[in-house]
Amino acid sequence: MQYADRLNNVETSAIRELFKLLGKPGIISFAGGFPDSAMFDVEGIREASNLALTQEPGAALQYGATEGYQPLREQLAAFMASKGVKGLSADGLIVTTGSQQALDLIAKTLLNPNDVALVEGPTFLATIQCFRLYGPQVVGVPIDAHGVQVDKLEEMIVQHKPKLVYLIPTFGNPSGATLSLERRLRVLELAVKYKTVVVEDDPYGDLYFGEAPPPSLLALSDQVPGSREWLIHCGSLSKVLSPGLRVGWMIAPPELLARATMCKQFSDAHTSTFAQATAAHYLKAGRMPATLAHVRSVYAERAQAMGDALKRELGDALTFTQPKGGLFFWANLTGVGGKLNDGAELAKRAIEKGVAFVPGAPFFANNPDTTAIRLSFATADVEKIKEGIARLGQAL
Amino acid sequence: MQYADRLNNVETSAIRELFKLLGKPGIISFAGGFPDSAMFDVEGIREASNLALTQEPGAALQYGATEGYQPLREQLAAFMASKGVKGLSADGLIVTTGSQQALDLIAKTLLNPNDVALVEGPTFLATIQCFRLYGPQVVGVPIDAHGVQVDKLEEMIVQHKPKLVYLIPTFGNPSGATLSLERRLRVLELAVKYKTVVVEDDPYGDLYFGEAPPPSLLALSDQVPGSREWLIHCGSLSKVLSPGLRVGWMIAPPELLARATMCKQFSDAHTSTFAQATAAHYLKAGRMPATLAHVRSVYAERAQAMGDALKRELGDALTFTQPKGGLFFWANLTGVGGKLNDGAELAKRAIEKGVAFVPGAPFFANNPDTTAIRLSFATADVEKIKEGIARLGQAL
Repeated sequence: MQYADRLNNVETSAIRELFKLLGKPGIISFAGGFPDSAMFDVEGIREASNLALTQEPGAALQYGATEGYQPLREQLAAFMASKGVKGLSADGLIVTTGSQQALDLIAKTLLNPNDVALVEGPTFLATIQCFRLYGPQVVGVPIDAHGVQVDKLEEMIVQHKPKLVYLIPTFGNPSGATLSLERRLRVLELAVKYKTVVVEDDPYGDLYFGEAPPPSLLALSDQVPGSREWLIHCGSLSKVLSPGLRVGWMIAPPELLARATMCKQFSDAHTSTFAQATAAHYLKAGRMPATLAHVRSVYAERAQAMGDALKRELGDALTFTQPKGGLFFWANLTGVGGKLNDGAELAKRAIEKGVAFVPGAPFFANNPDTTAIRLSFATADVEKIKEGIARLGQAL
Repeated sequence: MQYADRLNNVETSAIRELFKLLGKPGIISFAGGFPDSAMFDVEGIREASNLALTQEPGAALQYGATEGYQPLREQLAAFMASKGVKGLSADGLIVTTGSQQALDLIAKTLLNPNDVALVEGPTFLATIQCFRLYGPQVVGVPIDAHGVQVDKLEEMIVQHKPKLVYLIPTFGNPSGATLSLERRLRVLELAVKYKTVVVEDDPYGDLYFGEAPPPSLLALSDQVPGSREWLIHCGSLSKVLSPGLRVGWMIAPPELLARATMCKQFSDAHTSTFAQATAAHYLKAGRMPATLAHVRSVYAERAQAMGDALKRELGDALTFTQPKGGLFFWANLTGVGGKLNDGAELAKRAIEKGVAFVPGAPFFANNPDTTAIRLSFATADVEKIKEGIARLGQAL
C-alpha cells in the first residue's frame, strides 16, 4: 500500500519506545507529561456532567457548532479575563479537542510545505511532529533559564522569514523555563515588526508554586499596539482539571479563527458537546479556584522534594534550575568526574534500576543536546520521588 | 496574513449559508443531517457516565492511549461481531472523534496532492471538503437506486488509478440508496483486482425499517479472498446513540491502522476518555438493542409519512425512491408542466413558505445534478412532516 508522502517527515518517537517499558513492575516513573489522576475533582465533574444531562440533555448529546458550545465559550472567555486578558468575547475563541488539536488546526490553516516554523529548542515533541506532517521545516531557537533568547530569535526571524513562531512561554515543556516580562514584550514587538504569527501555547501557566508568573503574551498584547493581530493563544483544561475531557481552546484574530474553524469542521466536526457541557457546568459552579489551589500546593511540594533529592543524590553530576511551576525538571548531565553525560544511555540504565524518565534530545527539532534529561514530578508522591531519585543516583 | 494554499481547495458551503436562515421562527426543517434529540437515551447515558466516574475515575479523566480506551474497543469489536463481522479483535480498530475524524485520518494517511479519490456522485459533502484539504482530485462515480454503478466504477478505476474509493453503501447520504449484495461483492473484487483501497463509511446501516440491509462490505470481505487487506470501515455512534459523544471508530489493515494512529496522535492525542468510558459502559449495559429498536420504529413511521405526503402534495413534479432506512429522501424535480426543476431555487422559495431542505447540487464532487433535493425525515414528527411537505407543494 502506498501511504502519503507526508508520513515520511515523522519518525516514531524514541520516547514512545521507552514508554513500552514502563509496565515493568515496581518502576517509579518520572517519564510522563500528565497530571496526577489522584487529584482529579471527580465529584465536581460528576455533578457537572449530571447537571448537563439534566438541564440541557438535547444540546449536550446532539451535534453542536464547530466553534464550540456557547456556554463553555462564555465561561472560557471569563476564565481568560480573570487572568488579565482584555477585550475577549466568547466569539473570540473556539473550543478544540485538547490543545493538541489547536496545534493541528494552526498547522493546517497556516503551513505550506517548505515554510519555516520556529520553535524553542527544546520544545514539546508532539508540536514538532504535528507541524512536520504539513511539510514545513521546523527550526529550533536556543533558550536559557529565562525562555527563548530574543536576540537570537530576531536574527532567525530575519534569516528564515518563518510563517510562525511557536512558544511555550510559561513553565515550558520540557524546559520548565519561563519567559521574562521584558522578553515577552520583545516577542510581541518582533511579531509586529516582522509581521510574523506568534503561537503562545499555555497549558501550564496556572500551575505556579509561589508568585504568579508574568502575564501571558495575550494579556500583555494591549501594551504592544498591533500585536494582537499576530497572536494565537492555546489554552487547555488538561493539566489543571482533566485531560480526559479533551477540552482546549484557541484564541486568534477573527479571520484566522474563521479559517481554523473551517478546518476543524472537516477534522472532527466539533469537540464532544457532552465533555464541553460538563466543562461549562464545572467552570460555572466556581470550583476551579479551589481545584487550582490544591493542585498547585501538591505539585509545589513534589517539585521541592525532587530538587532537594537531585542535589543530595546526584550533586554536581547534574545542573538544573529549580522550576517555579509546571510539571517538569529539565537538567543537564555534566559528566563531571568521568560520569555518564548521555541522557539516552542514562535512561536505559535507570530503567534497569527501576526508575524512568525521558532523555532530552528528542525534544529538539535540530541540534539536540544529548546531555539533557526531563523529569516529571507530577505523578509520584514525595516518598516515591525520594526513592526514585536515589535509584537514579545509583544508575549514574 | 498568508494562509496555507490548501485552503484554496475548499469553499464555504452553500448549505452553511442556508443553515443561517433556519433560525426564522416557525420554519419546519428537513435540512439537517442529525438524529432527533428527543430520542436520546438520556437516562442510559447518565447511568453509564456515572458508572465510568465511579468505577474508573482515574482512567476516564486521564490521558489515554491514542488507539482508544480498551474496554470501549472491546465493546465495539463485539458490536461489529454481532453484525456479522468475523475475526475482528479490539486491536483491529481505533476509536476516533466521530467518524468525521476517521475520514480526516484516512486522508492524512493516504492522500498526496494530485492523487485521485473516487466518491459516489452524490456523496457526503464533508467528505469531499475533508479530502480536498489534502490536495487530491475528488471525482464522482454515478449511482442509481442500488448504489454505485459498479461497471462505471471499474472503468473509472482503470482510468484514474485512484488512491481510494469512498462509499456509503448503506442508506447513503444524501442518496438514501443501498448497494445491492451483488454489487457489494463486485466492489470487493475490484479492490483486490486493482489493489485499490475501499473506504466503507457506515453511519446509517443500523437504521433500517423492515428487513436488514445486505451485510457490510466488511462483513462480506471473507467471501472475497484478499479484500480485507484493502478495506477500511468507519462506524459511528452518532446516528444511533448520540452525536455529542463524538465516538466513532475505524477498522483497517494493521499497517494502515498504525499509521492512522500516528496521525491521530498529532491531531488530538486521543478521543475524550470520558466520552469513551461512557460509551463503553452504555454498550456493556446492553441497552443498545432497545435503543435501536425504538429509533428504527420512529424513523420508519416518519419516512412513511414523508413519502405519502410527497406523493400527495407534489405528485409527478418529483421522483424518488422510498428509503428503507437512514435519515434521508433524495428526490428529483421533474419540471413537469413547466414547474420549477432547480433545487437551489426551490430551497429559497421554500424558506419563504416556512419549510427548509437542502438542494442536491453541492453533494456532487463534479457534474452536479441541479434537479436534486435532500429531505431529512429524522427530526420533525409526523404532523410537522405533513405540514412541511404541504408548504413545499405550495412553494413549487
